[in-house]
Amino acid sequence: MPQITLHDLATKLNISVSTVSKALKGYSDVSAKTRKAVIDLAKELNFTPNIVASNLRTQQTHTIGVIVPTIVHHFFSNVINGIIKEAEKSGYMVILLQSNDNYELEKKQLDLLIKQQVDGILISLSVETTNFEHLEKVQQIGIPLVMYDKISDAIDCSKVLIDDKKAAYEAVSYLIRKGYKNIAYFGASLQAHNFSNRFLGYKQALEEFRIPFDDSLIYICENNDEYNYGYNNAEQLIKDHGFKNVDAVFAVTDVIAVGVSKFFNTHSISIPQDIAVFGFSNWFMSTVVTPALSTVNQPNYELGKKAIEILLEEITLNEAKKEITPQKIILETSLNIREST
Amino acid sequence: MPQITLHDLATKLNISVSTVSKALKGYSDVSAKTRKAVIDLAKELNFTPNIVASNLRTQQTHTIGVIVPTIVHHFFSNVINGIIKEAEKSGYMVILLQSNDNYELEKKQLDLLIKQQVDGILISLSVETTNFEHLEKVQQIGIPLVMYDKISDAIDCSKVLIDDKKAAYEAVSYLIRKGYKNIAYFGASLQAHNFSNRFLGYKQALEEFRIPFDDSLIYICENNDEYNYGYNNAEQLIKDHGFKNVDAVFAVTDVIAVGVSKFFNTHSISIPQDIAVFGFSNWFMSTVVTPALSTVNQPNYELGKKAIEILLEEITLNEAKKEITPQKIILETSLNIREST
Repeated sequence: MPQITLHDLATKLNISVSTVSKALKGYSDVSAKTRKAVIDLAKELNFTPNIVASNLRTQQTHTIGVIVPTIVHHFFSNVINGIIKEAEKSGYMVILLQSNDNYELEKKQLDLLIKQQVDGILISLSVETTNFEHLEKVQQIGIPLVMYDKISDAIDCSKVLIDDKKAAYEAVSYLIRKGYKNIAYFGASLQAHNFSNRFLGYKQALEEFRIPFDDSLIYICENNDEYNYGYNNAEQLIKDHGFKNVDAVFAVTDVIAVGVSKFFNTHSISIPQDIAVFGFSNWFMSTVVTPALSTVNQPNYELGKKAIEILLEEITLNEAKKEITPQKIILETSLNIREST
Repeated sequence: MPQITLHDLATKLNISVSTVSKALKGYSDVSAKTRKAVIDLAKELNFTPNIVASNLRTQQTHTIGVIVPTIVHHFFSNVINGIIKEAEKSGYMVILLQSNDNYELEKKQLDLLIKQQVDGILISLSVETTNFEHLEKVQQIGIPLVMYDKISDAIDCSKVLIDDKKAAYEAVSYLIRKGYKNIAYFGASLQAHNFSNRFLGYKQALEEFRIPFDDSLIYICENNDEYNYGYNNAEQLIKDHGFKNVDAVFAVTDVIAVGVSKFFNTHSISIPQDIAVFGFSNWFMSTVVTPALSTVNQPNYELGKKAIEILLEEITLNEAKKEITPQKIILETSLNIREST
């Protein structure tokens, strides 16, 4: 069934389109009787005002584009949850796109969002992204842009993130203070802003406690299969060093840490008696694995909520033709100490 | 910076708007020289054709509305992943809304999607939904509608789901054949189509093996905090029956099963020696908890993929003004037997 239009209503009632339009908007120059007739017919026929046509007038679509590297990861599910709930409250809908950590796809998706005339864009960068022209283009067109989590300093826009270096520094310092000295680092691609900062935090803690940096303790996961990477490299770690020469593993994600724990659990290496394991994110499952995982508590939901709040402010400023001053919001992290350390 | 329009290009080049438009579309009645001048300027100014204006002509928005009860649940993250990847391939974008299992919100969200003139809608119903007028309205307006996972037989549209009754029947039959006789049922709201069918599957297995149904072994989780529900009701189960009088727990979600396992693990009740635990969904974490969880393997990603495929077919039929014949697709499940049984 084709969608009912203003024109259909006008024809059926034998009045002009502009009278129908005025009646629906409650203008006073339409008689109460005509107004009632229009509204009754509109209800009867399930008439819905054409938002595409009205968008054309107001130049607003009340949609926001959100690009995430990956959805399945528990961290991003929570971030999206925060974004969608907050957008909903303000009457905005979210177009969600997933870059799969692929630069070309991210570029294409930004073009699609521009064509779709979204009112604003939230992006967490793909790990591959080292060229930022596609983001500059968004800014040149005048669409408010906010980055969250995986950001780049190359673009002057608002950003919402955590202090990854500080969080990693605090986690590793905690391990050192607890007496762990030979701490392996299980990382992910150093190309990503957040992971390279976690690495710097690890190094800073070692330096401060005058523990020599040993690069044979550094393992970097280059793909997205973090769980198996954690499992397999725990095996490699034991082959390389023997479990008497390693005290602890600091993993840059909980998924990696859970893979590490699974290997130790199934090979009779006791956590934390033989080796301690520290994760990052406070992913839901970090509480339910045995032993429960010590981890960095990352405010996932709040991160999404804050990012969309700032974007909505900037959309309002943009519509009022007022200047936007980029903000950098750093959310607090904390340590959740559980059984694994 | 306001968005560049066809009119801006025409003014700067001192030619007509229609010449600019024809040049961009590659029409042959514009000279090569003019065409080049238009394209060069369009590139220089980051000109993007106005999709809202062109939507008005084609009546297509190339957007699809997707309503999920909740995003954080690993099951729905995977389903969304399947939907978004498949939509992307066909040039469609996904507006994602979350009903939080709330009927009023679901109703409001469908209205928003209608106003946004999406080309089609995918919905998994909120657990509260027992009135279906809002869905009938979508159909009356003529927007293709496909239900997935949490469906209702009250609406005649295409549906993609699993056979929940059969899957639960197979899981419980497996437990019985393995010698477990006193099997507790840890369920979720029977109001939801899928959970009531899992309950029927449980009962069918008992009947077939002539095991009397004992309603003191039935525990129903009425809220969304499945993990704590599983944990707390495992405690209640032991209080009610003592662990010698219960052989196994069949939980209708992996999250519940993981909560149950955590309680047993931390209270020295051995899985599966004292009590076996069976889950449902093959959630990622079911493999990493200790002991690894036996579970029903639910094809999450495929479910999302199939649902969007059918919707895209129906959108094509709809645009060609051809009739849509509703399909009901039942995807296969299987049992993943691991250490917990």
